[in-house]
Amino acid sequence: MNLADYLREQQKIVDAALDAAVPPGSAPPENIHRAMRYSLFAGGKRIRPILCMEAARCVAADAPGIEIAACSLELIHTYSLIHDDLPALDNDDLRRGRPTCHKVFGEAMAILAGDALLTLAFQVLAEAPVDADWRARMTAELATASGTVAGMIAGQVHDLESEGGPATPEVLERIHRAKTGALLRASLRLGAIYGGATREPFQALSCYGEHIGLAFQIVDDILDVEESSEALGKTPGKDAQQRKVTFPAVYGIEQSRDMAERERLAAHRALDGFGTRAQRLREIADLIVYRRA
Amino acid sequence: MNLADYLREQQKIVDAALDAAVPPGSAPPENIHRAMRYSLFAGGKRIRPILCMEAARCVAADAPGIEIAACSLELIHTYSLIHDDLPALDNDDLRRGRPTCHKVFGEAMAILAGDALLTLAFQVLAEAPVDADWRARMTAELATASGTVAGMIAGQVHDLESEGGPATPEVLERIHRAKTGALLRASLRLGAIYGGATREPFQALSCYGEHIGLAFQIVDDILDVEESSEALGKTPGKDAQQRKVTFPAVYGIEQSRDMAERERLAAHRALDGFGTRAQRLREIADLIVYRRA
Repeated sequence: MNLADYLREQQKIVDAALDAAVPPGSAPPENIHRAMRYSLFAGGKRIRPILCMEAARCVAADAPGIEIAACSLELIHTYSLIHDDLPALDNDDLRRGRPTCHKVFGEAMAILAGDALLTLAFQVLAEAPVDADWRARMTAELATASGTVAGMIAGQVHDLESEGGPATPEVLERIHRAKTGALLRASLRLGAIYGGATREPFQALSCYGEHIGLAFQIVDDILDVEESSEALGKTPGKDAQQRKVTFPAVYGIEQSRDMAERERLAAHRALDGFGTRAQRLREIADLIVYRRA
Repeated sequence: MNLADYLREQQKIVDAALDAAVPPGSAPPENIHRAMRYSLFAGGKRIRPILCMEAARCVAADAPGIEIAACSLELIHTYSLIHDDLPALDNDDLRRGRPTCHKVFGEAMAILAGDALLTLAFQVLAEAPVDADWRARMTAELATASGTVAGMIAGQVHDLESEGGPATPEVLERIHRAKTGALLRASLRLGAIYGGATREPFQALSCYGEHIGLAFQIVDDILDVEESSEALGKTPGKDAQQRKVTFPAVYGIEQSRDMAERERLAAHRALDGFGTRAQRLREIADLIVYRRA
């Protein structure tokens, strides 16, 4: 099966698990569930849950229920998009080609929908069908990757505070390692824990996660400069407009491309010990770097 | 020791555990940690963590580390206050006698500080020094009590959507059972789980939690009508101004007082099986109903 078909199949598995995890839009209070579902089922590629499931497959022949734990990553990711898009933060009107959550449901409901998805992420993990010790380890990993010390919120704050300031390699690295890198790395780490990984494969998958995380952000920044709104599904050129610190701004487009390629190769090397089990993870690293949107 | 002294002593235990759980204001990114601490250490009475610790004491001679798990309730409570105060929600400038979080740190930082406290609540529970199965049960309880089906967020949405609408007993009950009742009840349930409660004491403590939760809200609504801003530490008369559905609005002041008294007595009855171990919980029920702010 080629990668595109494989990813579509995996997305369906994730979507079904997400659909089961979130109350239906008809459940009262309806508006909050409709707002959560509006953002959750907006055509996301489910890259984080898929990375989580693939990581488990690298270390275990079978990991039943992994898609449930994997959902927690998409719930966190979606909450962060809803809150980032708010007027007080990035003030974005468009996300994945559609009006943002607060544009459709209002600001109050968008704040609460984000809170609700964040809360649900931890509920889903707490109830995942696996040993309680592993659930607790995954919960701690997910919270750390989402948190204020070296996680997503830390990255968001660094990002906000760096707007209009000097764009140095150090500032850039600090923002992205936390803002997007931590959750992508956690996707691999959660899968590794669920699969029962011992120390060495756990570290290898975590290392792969760091490299694709950085590659992902570099390519995202390049696409923001180069692509049209239509291909991107969000407002392009927004980074420059908001004077965000980006890879093209610090290194230029050509050097940024070289960096993404180096990260791709490093991600491949991290998987050397897994043989064919990690084939999909290798293909995903390539896709991240060579994608056009 | 009289109750006031006892509560002060317990508050100190909770404050020390919270201080250990939240990164210091000097840890980068400093602003987010300062915003979290600003709202967390604003003179809160720590009623939820204290109820949690008392519940554990009703069922276990000793529950080492219970104050760590109990912190999760205060983290959730504080996140909900920060987000509720935002301009898009209740738009409050004053909380516990001080400017609200977004007034001091800006809206973006207040949104992120709320997100961070919510995230930290689950991290703290995941790392509590108790059996992993119990940690998972507590996590699921806390998420349900905070969530969209019958938890805090559900109550908040019902509350928003009922503004200006008809104030019926049904609407009132639906809002408050979810908005404040669920988390107060969860405070007892988490403590019961931590203390290793079997089914019957677990249900009794949960029942006590429901009654004091309702009493707490009734008295809160009465105080909002009767007290001055100074005694209350927040803007008084706000409920009527925002056309909120309140107990005095539906039942009048006198009948509301009678209802609070009935809930207090029902809370006492729920504790009958615990003897002297539940003495502080009885006193707290009295305090909730007879307080002046």
